[in-house]
Amino acid sequence: MKVDGRHFRSIWLEPDGWSVGAIDQRRLPHEFVVAGLTTCEAAAEAIRSMLVRGAPLIGATAAYGVALAMRTDVSDAALERAYDALMATRPTAINLKWALDMMREALLPLPPSARTAAGYAKAFEIAEQDIAINKGIGQHGLALIEAIRARKKPGERINVLTHCNAGWLATVDWGTATAPIYMAHDRGFAIHVWVDETRPRNQGASLTAWELGHHGVPHTVIPDNTGGHLMQHGMVDLVIVGTDRVTASGDVCNKIGTYLKALAAQDNGVPFYVALPSPTIDFSIRDGIRQIPIEQRSADEVATMTGRTADGRIETIRVVAEGSPVANYGFDVTPARLVTGLITERGVLGADRDALARAFPERARGR
Amino acid sequence: MKVDGRHFRSIWLEPDGWSVGAIDQRRLPHEFVVAGLTTCEAAAEAIRSMLVRGAPLIGATAAYGVALAMRTDVSDAALERAYDALMATRPTAINLKWALDMMREALLPLPPSARTAAGYAKAFEIAEQDIAINKGIGQHGLALIEAIRARKKPGERINVLTHCNAGWLATVDWGTATAPIYMAHDRGFAIHVWVDETRPRNQGASLTAWELGHHGVPHTVIPDNTGGHLMQHGMVDLVIVGTDRVTASGDVCNKIGTYLKALAAQDNGVPFYVALPSPTIDFSIRDGIRQIPIEQRSADEVATMTGRTADGRIETIRVVAEGSPVANYGFDVTPARLVTGLITERGVLGADRDALARAFPERARGR
Repeated sequence: MKVDGRHFRSIWLEPDGWSVGAIDQRRLPHEFVVAGLTTCEAAAEAIRSMLVRGAPLIGATAAYGVALAMRTDVSDAALERAYDALMATRPTAINLKWALDMMREALLPLPPSARTAAGYAKAFEIAEQDIAINKGIGQHGLALIEAIRARKKPGERINVLTHCNAGWLATVDWGTATAPIYMAHDRGFAIHVWVDETRPRNQGASLTAWELGHHGVPHTVIPDNTGGHLMQHGMVDLVIVGTDRVTASGDVCNKIGTYLKALAAQDNGVPFYVALPSPTIDFSIRDGIRQIPIEQRSADEVATMTGRTADGRIETIRVVAEGSPVANYGFDVTPARLVTGLITERGVLGADRDALARAFPERARGR
Repeated sequence: MKVDGRHFRSIWLEPDGWSVGAIDQRRLPHEFVVAGLTTCEAAAEAIRSMLVRGAPLIGATAAYGVALAMRTDVSDAALERAYDALMATRPTAINLKWALDMMREALLPLPPSARTAAGYAKAFEIAEQDIAINKGIGQHGLALIEAIRARKKPGERINVLTHCNAGWLATVDWGTATAPIYMAHDRGFAIHVWVDETRPRNQGASLTAWELGHHGVPHTVIPDNTGGHLMQHGMVDLVIVGTDRVTASGDVCNKIGTYLKALAAQDNGVPFYVALPSPTIDFSIRDGIRQIPIEQRSADEVATMTGRTADGRIETIRVVAEGSPVANYGFDVTPARLVTGLITERGVLGADRDALARAFPERARGR
């Protein structure tokens, strides 16, 4: 999408034809810095350190990581090492495994000498496929927004609430939850986004707000505690969030706190949608609460915050009482019963086993 | 309660017999600083700036503010001016009006020359009454914790989740939500508290964690997004929160985000209790969502955070993307249907009109 009028993607092949450029998302919103990834290890570290984040972008980065690995060693062993190293970076993201499986399946049967070129081609294909999927999500989600707009007075504000960053920065372009929002905005709809700040890492306040602002979409940042109050007072027309993994029965694993917003949406009759590229669906599991391992992350992410002082210095400060222990669960699971619909590239589906299996028979079969 | 072994209250009359000491809660958890309040204006500013906060402490501070006003002008007009100035500081807190009404009723009938001494006596009485009420809340709440303990293995951890700070720092001593916790801890129960950090002002991470830690109560700070996940996994035995105002029908106005925890508690069969001194009940209103005005506070509270750098400097940093608008609603309303019980100084009551009217007939009568 646009950054002050100029089009960007979140990851790209540099003009040198082999190194990979990516926006360093740890530096946003205060600094716009491009990182150059030149090795598989750098790609793995970029995922681990959250220089890149968001399930689809993690997948694309891992794919380029495999391509980079093939530049120095095209052996089967090197391919497996790259697979394992990249796989170990973020245990919760299903797209990571999906992208790595695609890469391995594409490269392993080839003669080693063909693997480098094929790796770059496949990584490019994975990135392009993500963009095509997100455009599909955008078009199906746009229909939901159009239906809400049709019930309002001309020009009346349409309020969407979102959590975390399922924006173009989390994908290669367009975003998942944001794709319908960007399309609605670009058509001139009076769309406004309530942006959950999304503690502890503040992806909403720092990334979603940044990308919406730089594209020109009206929005307001709110503490994560606020959404329930807004819904009680009719100030939210629909919720659209992204997801890191959806089970075969429609349970949604997403950034910690998503479940609380789904409960509030249900309690107030607000539609709660989840936007997802179909690789995010994990047909191998059914019960999200029991079966999805929830990543526990560093206490420092909660206990400290980083931002810019009034005079422009970047500082990290402690915000929790000295000596107090901290817990930091990365994700939670929203049960399917709280989800109004899943916005996929094949349409808006019910969050249930039958709807998912009908829409993706080639993946659900035999499960 | 104790601060590293030494007993403190949150507000007290200094040994000089007229000036008022209070812990400057804006400096916690990084610095323990006592502020001296010497005028009514200083007391009002202490409430407005949240040097003191928490409904009962606001009431006690306002009472001392009236006493301080009487030191320089004992006229009816001065009494009314003090009432109005203190009343205007925080619109949502019902205790503020309750304490100011008590002061006015006590002082207005007196000859002006008697008002200064009577003002100090009445303010002291209001502070002492708060402590007595909180002890009552503690004893009734302790019975709930004892019942949970009785169902567990010996020594097994009892997990309480709380939001914001309804601790001794929010009252004169003991706290409301924390009174049962301190009593359980002091009896040697294996009690552990999940402390919501409570964005945007972080009263949980900075105040509740500080007071629990300095008294020695095991606790863990969590982002506000986390409670639902913990409840889904059986890691919370009960929720106890405080409140700024309870309606005649049991709706609970409390720090923004409380409603989301109540929804999660209901969805997971976790008891959700609200601890309150009875002055917090507003028998004049019924429908909390429609009738309680919700204070909107400064955007800076969300957009910036203040804390301590690794080398000990106190810095304020911006954590929201530059140029992004921010909304900051201070409170939300949890409907009575989500409240398991109200822990008051007269026992644990159902959150409904009949139970409240039966327990407080002298206040409910004629409404």
